[in-house]
Amino acid sequence: MAQQVNPPRGMRDFLPADKSAREAILSIIRRTYLAHGFDEIETPVAEDSERLHAGLGGDNEKLAFAIMRRGLRVEDLHTAEAPLDLADLGLRFDLTVPLARFYATHRAELPRPFRAIQMAPVWRAERPQKGRYRQFVQCDIDIIGEAGPLAEIELLTASVAAIRALGIDDFTIRVNDRRLLIGMLEYFGFSADEHDQVLITVDKLDKIAAAGVVAELRERGMAAGAVEALEAFLTRPAAAEAPRFGEAQIRAALPEGLDSPAIAELAMIGEAVTAAVGGDVVAYDPWLVRGMGYYTGPIFEVAHPELGYSFGGGGRYDGMIGRFLGEDVPAAGFSLGFERLVDLVTLPAGAGSNATAIVYDSSADPRTIVAVRDRVVAAGGTARLVKRPKKLAQALDALATDGITEFYLVDESTDAAAVEAKPLAAR
Amino acid sequence: MAQQVNPPRGMRDFLPADKSAREAILSIIRRTYLAHGFDEIETPVAEDSERLHAGLGGDNEKLAFAIMRRGLRVEDLHTAEAPLDLADLGLRFDLTVPLARFYATHRAELPRPFRAIQMAPVWRAERPQKGRYRQFVQCDIDIIGEAGPLAEIELLTASVAAIRALGIDDFTIRVNDRRLLIGMLEYFGFSADEHDQVLITVDKLDKIAAAGVVAELRERGMAAGAVEALEAFLTRPAAAEAPRFGEAQIRAALPEGLDSPAIAELAMIGEAVTAAVGGDVVAYDPWLVRGMGYYTGPIFEVAHPELGYSFGGGGRYDGMIGRFLGEDVPAAGFSLGFERLVDLVTLPAGAGSNATAIVYDSSADPRTIVAVRDRVVAAGGTARLVKRPKKLAQALDALATDGITEFYLVDESTDAAAVEAKPLAAR
Repeated sequence: MAQQVNPPRGMRDFLPADKSAREAILSIIRRTYLAHGFDEIETPVAEDSERLHAGLGGDNEKLAFAIMRRGLRVEDLHTAEAPLDLADLGLRFDLTVPLARFYATHRAELPRPFRAIQMAPVWRAERPQKGRYRQFVQCDIDIIGEAGPLAEIELLTASVAAIRALGIDDFTIRVNDRRLLIGMLEYFGFSADEHDQVLITVDKLDKIAAAGVVAELRERGMAAGAVEALEAFLTRPAAAEAPRFGEAQIRAALPEGLDSPAIAELAMIGEAVTAAVGGDVVAYDPWLVRGMGYYTGPIFEVAHPELGYSFGGGGRYDGMIGRFLGEDVPAAGFSLGFERLVDLVTLPAGAGSNATAIVYDSSADPRTIVAVRDRVVAAGGTARLVKRPKKLAQALDALATDGITEFYLVDESTDAAAVEAKPLAAR
Repeated sequence: MAQQVNPPRGMRDFLPADKSAREAILSIIRRTYLAHGFDEIETPVAEDSERLHAGLGGDNEKLAFAIMRRGLRVEDLHTAEAPLDLADLGLRFDLTVPLARFYATHRAELPRPFRAIQMAPVWRAERPQKGRYRQFVQCDIDIIGEAGPLAEIELLTASVAAIRALGIDDFTIRVNDRRLLIGMLEYFGFSADEHDQVLITVDKLDKIAAAGVVAELRERGMAAGAVEALEAFLTRPAAAEAPRFGEAQIRAALPEGLDSPAIAELAMIGEAVTAAVGGDVVAYDPWLVRGMGYYTGPIFEVAHPELGYSFGGGGRYDGMIGRFLGEDVPAAGFSLGFERLVDLVTLPAGAGSNATAIVYDSSADPRTIVAVRDRVVAAGGTARLVKRPKKLAQALDALATDGITEFYLVDESTDAAAVEAKPLAAR
């Protein structure tokens, strides 16, 4: 009779312990970003189909879940020329396309610059696999309407504060600038139409090292002279690391003679963030690429020494936010990978640890159970109601494991006003 | 160039002030329900299509947004026999169907009884109209696995606490029992196949009065003798109201001689809730119907004297939760109409009132701006960053209107360590 019943493929339920941890983490991130001057907004989970598929989402557009038009007739199906003809809405695959649409709708009511927080689920029809879900939460902050490095400095310092507020101290944020990356490719002699492929390969530098990068570029037929110049550069003797993230360090890491206004801007960002958050939290990485092609300036990525992956990142994307407006609007954002953070964060205490258990027998008068519960609530506590099982000791052990320290035992003879809580440890 | 860009029809964006109020209200409700022994869970926004359309959702099933299968080919469209053939998922239209599916998936890991909180959006493709949205939030609590009146008493007392925690004190919860309603219809002589129609008509008693109900039942051809008996009952001289919600009052409101075990249960619920929350919060209403046909026992509905509508309600629905398991599982729930509560609640202070403004000139060094911000944050405050407009006085007025009481002015000559906040009132 009973068959296995599950949530939809690739999507998850959250039981109380997980839900409580997720809400606690969201709440810490929200509080930190609000304190740092950002304002939270919310958009609907769906956007009009033509906007989701306007080319702002890169490859993610292909992963959008499409919502069917209502009131379709069978003839509509039979005369449709493509599946998307039957859809008028889609679930958002990121929070950036909705932000661009939100800004186009409400710009007259928003301050400029506008500092936005969005913490919300997104959906992608990816092949489900370990750690990759079809519904997952993103925590984004974005600053719209600020063209200067103040935006990046605010994003990075607020994000460092949020990550630290979660108890994570052991992380680095690698910083680079799209313009310097492109500058280097031009310097070595790659043609503009080779840039995308070269960046995809260079992005693997950590994994396949200089020799691997060079081999792959040769195999893919990139301009031989340029590959040679890149190889010479990658294999040159390493310079002693500059003591801080400043203009000298950036220049030392770039080919000699390469110049760009991005150098001074990036140095300003590095120095300001270092001054604000201390230590060596931000580091310049001349080979940081970031996948999305929409970045136009500084880019960042958070690395944790124990993880093989990043749990956050972002950058400047000046071309996107104004797209639905038909005007240029500078913008930069930072996204925390919430699902990855959840795995990293250990909250100080179990959700149940502030609770007082009320273990009630089925013989107990409901009025007594509720009256004892209300004593706990009135004292500012949290009640956990547990129906007394046959083996009381087992139930009490489970409560103790949950971090609960005291309990009331309620049965038909209990006087709600007089009963006293017993310590769980000394039972 | 720029055209009007809006969120999808019937769906809403929330700007910072609204978002902040909504989060504050959700947080108060969550805290209250958690304190009263409920545990929060979350399910995905989508469920498998066949489960959404399993008959548990009544008329709402027709309003479900359908999500198209991925990877459809044009041939699939042309050979489909109905639109739903092309959909494998749908957005949930309530939180009860997902709860039944959740319980079927996880029952082995859940305590019994299980007390669930769900606060989450649902979607219905209704014709958009004032106060009716296609995406809206529901706040449900449910108790699964408790057959006795303890469940109803917990639901009602916890809901009263949540409503009061929102600062709403002027409300009544009308209570009835589906079994007594049916008992009355049988007593008057309506046949079982007339019950649904009679209940639909009786549900309008408040609006069209006894004469209207009787006229409508006659017009619809209901059994003449039964309509006459109902008319005599509805127009009998009103009994003096019993002083409290107890068995005597219930019996006095019912036709003489009608008996049911529901009377003692309902009296127990009324007395226990009155004892716990005081006053005349719960009232027995023999003609409360509640629309959904799935209720099997006690039913409740919150009324506010100034509103023409209810902002919450629920009841016992023993047949539903076990449906995906193929077994009987007793359950009762209470749902708060979040969107209606938002309109009713006045939060104590504006979201911005704890903030300190940092008004910065475009000439200011970003490091100084961030350093002043971090002074505010380090002191436990909330910073609001505002780029200095040409007319400073206007900006300061707007901040004062937002409830902000002090501000820093930052320009190129500011020393972050030495600058002092100025009161907004005395500027």
